[in-house]
Amino acid sequence: MSFFSADIRTLDDLFLRQLRDIYYAEQRIAKSLPDMIDKADNADLKRAFESHLEETRGHVERLERVFDSIGKRVEGVDCPAIDGVIDEANEIFGEITDGEVLDAALAAAAQTVEHYEMSRYGTLIAWAKELGKHDCAELLQQTLEEEKAADKTLTEIAEERLNKAG
Amino acid sequence: MSFFSADIRTLDDLFLRQLRDIYYAEQRIAKSLPDMIDKADNADLKRAFESHLEETRGHVERLERVFDSIGKRVEGVDCPAIDGVIDEANEIFGEITDGEVLDAALAAAAQTVEHYEMSRYGTLIAWAKELGKHDCAELLQQTLEEEKAADKTLTEIAEERLNKAG
Repeated sequence: MSFFSADIRTLDDLFLRQLRDIYYAEQRIAKSLPDMIDKADNADLKRAFESHLEETRGHVERLERVFDSIGKRVEGVDCPAIDGVIDEANEIFGEITDGEVLDAALAAAAQTVEHYEMSRYGTLIAWAKELGKHDCAELLQQTLEEEKAADKTLTEIAEERLNKAG
Repeated sequence: MSFFSADIRTLDDLFLRQLRDIYYAEQRIAKSLPDMIDKADNADLKRAFESHLEETRGHVERLERVFDSIGKRVEGVDCPAIDGVIDEANEIFGEITDGEVLDAALAAAAQTVEHYEMSRYGTLIAWAKELGKHDCAELLQQTLEEEKAADKTLTEIAEERLNKAG
């Protein structure tokens, strides 16, 4: 995915490295969501994934605007973290033999992905502010708000199931 | 780490699987923190890691009480997600040539770990409630509160740096 291997000497370098990391991650998430939409049985969950796929494509474009804004080439870098999260989720999905249990696992995996992204965007926003890149911070904040909202929707879907069970 | 490979047929099975996953993750985190304490230059960050190492050991013990409570053997299962998060962090630490930048990367990695744990514990608590395992939910909630507090401390340390820079 990348030939990036230079030393990280400054916070600018670290910002760029993490930007490349989340750019790869968003693309990996966009590739994974269609399979999760297929697997989801619960209609609300399916709709939440469909809506988040659209949003994720927007996040990729927004990151490209951040690369432009700092005058760097748009480029991803391998991200073992998101690969680990998604590979593990796929492994678990493959072991599940019941539709409702699969929905629970799909929602849980999606929330882990959301939390991964929330932590990354939170850090990137803090660093962008520290570096005086306020236009970047604003773009990244828009995505962070969407990730938080997606996580909240998944929590609400899980709570509805709990209320039905209870 | 484990010979667990049975199908996941019920939410109880999925709960146990995720419990084993976070049990492995907490142990991996406990093994990683001493190196992060060594690497941290900022005194507040070092103290936050030291305090979180103590807490993490408590989380491992609390998980063992959850295993006991559901009558299952204490056992971890490989968790590619946390391995990916920590391996990636170590790779980045190794590329950094400046102490302050390393502190920023250490704090960011720790927040990613916290968010991973928050998503896992959040899901486990919801499932424990759905399954009527209220004693488990209560134990897991105690850990979730500590993870949230640790994340908040790291955000405050980052904000202090930002205020100094600004």
